[in-house]
Amino acid sequence: MPKEKLAIVKIGGNIIEDDSLLKSFLHIFSGLEGKKILVHGGGKRATSVASKLGIESKMVNGRRITDAETLEVITMVYGGLVNKNIVAKLQALNIDAIGLTGADANTIYSEKRPVKDIDYGFVGDVKKVNHQSVDKLIQAGFTPVFCAITHDGHGQLLNTNADTITSQLAVGMSRIYETTIYYCFELNGVLKDINDKDSVIKHINSASYSTLLKEGIIAEGMLPKLENCFDALKNGVETINLGNTSMLTKENDNFTRITL
Amino acid sequence: MPKEKLAIVKIGGNIIEDDSLLKSFLHIFSGLEGKKILVHGGGKRATSVASKLGIESKMVNGRRITDAETLEVITMVYGGLVNKNIVAKLQALNIDAIGLTGADANTIYSEKRPVKDIDYGFVGDVKKVNHQSVDKLIQAGFTPVFCAITHDGHGQLLNTNADTITSQLAVGMSRIYETTIYYCFELNGVLKDINDKDSVIKHINSASYSTLLKEGIIAEGMLPKLENCFDALKNGVETINLGNTSMLTKENDNFTRITL
Repeated sequence: MPKEKLAIVKIGGNIIEDDSLLKSFLHIFSGLEGKKILVHGGGKRATSVASKLGIESKMVNGRRITDAETLEVITMVYGGLVNKNIVAKLQALNIDAIGLTGADANTIYSEKRPVKDIDYGFVGDVKKVNHQSVDKLIQAGFTPVFCAITHDGHGQLLNTNADTITSQLAVGMSRIYETTIYYCFELNGVLKDINDKDSVIKHINSASYSTLLKEGIIAEGMLPKLENCFDALKNGVETINLGNTSMLTKENDNFTRITL
Repeated sequence: MPKEKLAIVKIGGNIIEDDSLLKSFLHIFSGLEGKKILVHGGGKRATSVASKLGIESKMVNGRRITDAETLEVITMVYGGLVNKNIVAKLQALNIDAIGLTGADANTIYSEKRPVKDIDYGFVGDVKKVNHQSVDKLIQAGFTPVFCAITHDGHGQLLNTNADTITSQLAVGMSRIYETTIYYCFELNGVLKDINDKDSVIKHINSASYSTLLKEGIIAEGMLPKLENCFDALKNGVETINLGNTSMLTKENDNFTRITL
């Protein structure tokens, strides 16, 4: 029997921070047919709340150093403000959303990143997705909305990269479902020419990816994202789509589809 | 067939604000047998975060006026910081907790309080508990942890009194379960003499309540709480217990039990 389909949609700061973009995205998401999960980051909102509270945001290599105070801000902003507002707005669109961290229903277990050269603080690396628990919620008719927080099983919340949560969730859920990831971001997709927003590469697979890499076509910033994608595909995820939010509608086919 | 038992436990600011009291409470709660729900307020933490963010807390008759900025703080502190830390700590105690506002799984629907003499702002009066949704979570093996936030079904979160959430939840759940409320607070129970902490009235029912009222024995501050209790009992709740957290253990029988 073929597996049922599941869509996992990830949105980033650009959408969360813009009320009208968020509204339009949630409308599109609510219209997406079939079972689905939403994952969101928190974006600059955490930085601005931290700053108002007199907590300095420290970034190393584009990653936030999460000390105890910063973790509190992240828990407030991602787990509270952003997550609960998205849930309430989805409810208004007749989506029976339920907001979660990885601690809720013990859905995502992670370990505090070991200190090597850099101490990232309370940052978690995902170790296990409890796909059965997530599926209980889906089977009960709920649409899980995950924020970028996990837990270590010993009472400690951990700040966790939202892209990683998305791909690990997708890998976990692919045991039960035919899983597609939609990474919504600022660009229309992976671009052949970073200066031409319409130069979307519509399909990438393992073979064409090697060629693109050899030819140096993939922009530096896109490499970790794509590596992450192929990792998820090798571990059971069916398809990964990258593009702007309109790729979730049937009108737009101008985005990047990645398969093995 | 007799209904299965369900305990709904409410804790207030005095426990949430004290790490060692909270730890000890969560240990007791985790040992409580059978199906259960936790409800928590937020206490002074919201006031202190608001103050750091430069938002003035306005109280009228002991109730917080919730303007848009204050609602954001409440959503951050109750829905994020307090709720998610409790959930993570319960997970560490092998309780499969899931943190909720009334928007999550559409569990508690409320209406913005109409403006009469006072505009309370984004404060909600509970109109409907979706007991089926709460029960889906319980039946799936999860322990719901509610914070004091509900929603109006149109995308608006609303600050809602935690005692009211508790009694309304209990009334809703009593359709399915034989429901007992445990209101944990600073006192050992309802006191005969407000200056003697050991003068606990161990049992109150409708008849003895009338007598206590006539004799002027019930302290002013306790009246709304008790009215609320009898209201819940008249609407299906089986028993309401008032006391300190140790009433949840079998060792302490020095608390107030209220029945019809």
